[in-house]
Formats: sequence, C-alpha cells, structure tokens
Amino acid sequence: MTVREYQKKRRRERIFQAAMALFRQQGFRETTATDIAKAAHVSRGTFFNYYPYKEAVLLEYGSLLLADLREEVRRRLAQGEDPLALLRYLFGRLAAFTQAEKDLLLPLLYELLNPDPIRAKAAFMALPLGDLIAEVLKPLRDKGVVRQDLSLERMGRTLADLYFLAALRWAAYTPNRDFGGEVEKSLSLALEGILARSQPAQVSRKSPKAKA
Amino acid sequence: MTVREYQKKRRRERIFQAAMALFRQQGFRETTATDIAKAAHVSRGTFFNYYPYKEAVLLEYGSLLLADLREEVRRRLAQGEDPLALLRYLFGRLAAFTQAEKDLLLPLLYELLNPDPIRAKAAFMALPLGDLIAEVLKPLRDKGVVRQDLSLERMGRTLADLYFLAALRWAAYTPNRDFGGEVEKSLSLALEGILARSQPAQVSRKSPKAKA
Repeated sequence: MTVREYQKKRRRERIFQAAMALFRQQGFRETTATDIAKAAHVSRGTFFNYYPYKEAVLLEYGSLLLADLREEVRRRLAQGEDPLALLRYLFGRLAAFTQAEKDLLLPLLYELLNPDPIRAKAAFMALPLGDLIAEVLKPLRDKGVVRQDLSLERMGRTLADLYFLAALRWAAYTPNRDFGGEVEKSLSLALEGILARSQPAQVSRKSPKAKA
Repeated sequence: MTVREYQKKRRRERIFQAAMALFRQQGFRETTATDIAKAAHVSRGTFFNYYPYKEAVLLEYGSLLLADLREEVRRRLAQGEDPLALLRYLFGRLAAFTQAEKDLLLPLLYELLNPDPIRAKAAFMALPLGDLIAEVLKPLRDKGVVRQDLSLERMGRTLADLYFLAALRWAAYTPNRDFGGEVEKSLSLALEGILARSQPAQVSRKSPKAKA
C-alpha cells in the first residue's frame, strides 16, 4: 500500500467512525453531511468523495456486519453444523441485530427499496443476505432436504426478502412487539410452506397438496 | 343523497378521470397537481381537498381494481370453485394487471412502502390484498389443507408481500422478463415451502423435515 492509499484508507475510516457516532448520538435523519464532515475534520466535498450520500455510510456498516456473520456461518458449516439449525441461528442473529439497531436499520432497509435504481442496486450489492442464505441451503439441497425445482438463488432471495419486509414493518409500526418471534414465523412459513405437511387424522385425504 | 353530496361525488369522479387520463398520457411523474386541476376544471386547492397527494388517486384506482377482483373471487368461491385453483387464478390476474399497468403500478407499490407511516398505512388500507388471500385460504384451512399453526391473516399478508416485492423488483429492474412466471414461482414457494415435500428415492430418510 502506498502512503497515499494508506492516507485515503485512514481518512475513510475516520469519516465512517465520525458518521456512525453522530447517527447514534443525534439520529440518522438529523445528521447532515456537513455535520459529518466537520466531525471528521474534512470538507463537505471530501465527504462526498468517499460516500456519495449519507446512506452509503450505513450500507458500509451493514456490509461489515453481514461479512462477520458470513464468516461465522461458513466456519460453522465447515465444522459440520446442521444447516437448518444454522439457518435458524442466522435469522435469530438478524432479529437480535434488528432490535438492537432499529434506528439505523430503518434507513438502511429503505435504501434497498430506493426508487432510484442505481441506489437500490448499490444497497442490494452491499447486503448480499440472499446469497448467504443460499450458501446455507446448498448442502441441504445436495441431500435432497430442500426442493429441487427452484434455484438456490431464488430461495435465498425470498427468505432475505421476508426478513427485510418483516424488519421494515416491525421497525416502522410495531417496535414494541417481539421481533424474534416475527422472524421465526416468517422462516417457518417459507421453509414448510402454507399447505399442511400432514393431514389431520379426522379429515379424509382429499387433494392434500397442490399439484404445482 | 343531497344535491350537494351528488355534486361532490361528480366532482371527485371528474378529478379522478382527469388524473388517470393524464397519468396515462404523460406519465405519473410528469403530471402535477396543477395539471390535474386544470384538466378537471377545478382549483389546485379543490384537488387537494379530494386527494391529499397525487398518489391518493392511484390508491383509489388500485382499490377499485381490487374490489372487482374480490367480488369475482367471492362469487367463484360461493360457486364451489377449488380455492387453491382460485388462488392461482388470483395471482395470474395480479400478474397480468401488473404487466399491463406497469407504469402506474410502480408508484402505487412504493406508496405501500412510504417512509411516512400515515401514508403507508393509507396505502395498506386501500389495498387489502392480504385479506382477500386470507378469504381464499379460509376454506382450505377448515379442510385441513392449510397449516393450522399460523394465522390466516399472517399467511395472507405474506403472500401479498411476496407479490408486492416481486412486482416492485420486476417493474423497476426486469420489465422484459415474463412476470407471470415470477409470480407463479413465488406462490409455489410460499405454498409448498422450501423444504422438499417428499424425499428423492435414492436418499435415505434422514431428518426429512424441520422440527419447527
């Protein structure tokens, strides 16, 4: 790394830390780019060189958290842990993080749904939760535990979507409810499906499941 | 209905029609409240008396379409049509409408995710797709075809969410793909779940499904 690269990295780190501290102290909405630049001892223009918009700082934060989680999940998979139990663990961790970081999470989630396609795509690339879930599903698919007719990518993305939407709803409207329970139900619904897995005894076995 | 109420109703209708015509001619984004007021021969203030924001016109449009669909679904349910087939029909209709009305649909879907909770709630109330799906699931639940451990409301809302997200992604990023196929896959995933329904013959029957 050249001296120049090192300085850039240090400056980026300083801006990131200053921004996160301000978001936590005074709220994301209330923090302006000018506030961040001042706290990081850089010009406003320099801030925008590193982060084209405030939300990009949050994306980096989410991306780092997800990278940690990915590392842990991969290690545990390699150690032979049951992927289904690991998937539940992953959703539990997501729920715990969501509850702990609610105020930062909401603008992060909205960034995924930004009407500007370039920004939405940047958020989608920074937070590849669907890919991580697909990695956990892969050994299950190889064993035939997971259905074969849909791609791992689609299943991972759908599970990620269900988490994102549940988190968005919870943080925006019902932050006093237990979010862990919400996430568990979303996961159970997606894993087992809406159609009953076994028919109750008292009912005759007529069209027990869908054809599709 | 008094003369005054009748006049109000007529005026609302005129504003609605003028707005929808402009949205279709020149695009939703490009149409201002002033444009709509002018075309409907009312003042800008009068427009806002009837619709507090442009998107409220779209909500009314979506609400009318959904009411038609609900009436049809209820009639067919009452005639004894298979609810599961009807659910697939409903998703097919939603997909067809989405493809036909893409340009109007995108701002409508974003309204459901409006960061202003009052606006998001208004959109959610105007478009009770989850409730309609729950109505279709109810007879299936009574017969034991649908699982008993999650509420009909939750299952309906999740299916509606999967449609909304699929439509948003499709309209924003991949409008050239076949959306009907996308919706079918979402529905199949939610109905049957990610875990295989039956184990492939060559695999020994070890932990074939989740415990949760």
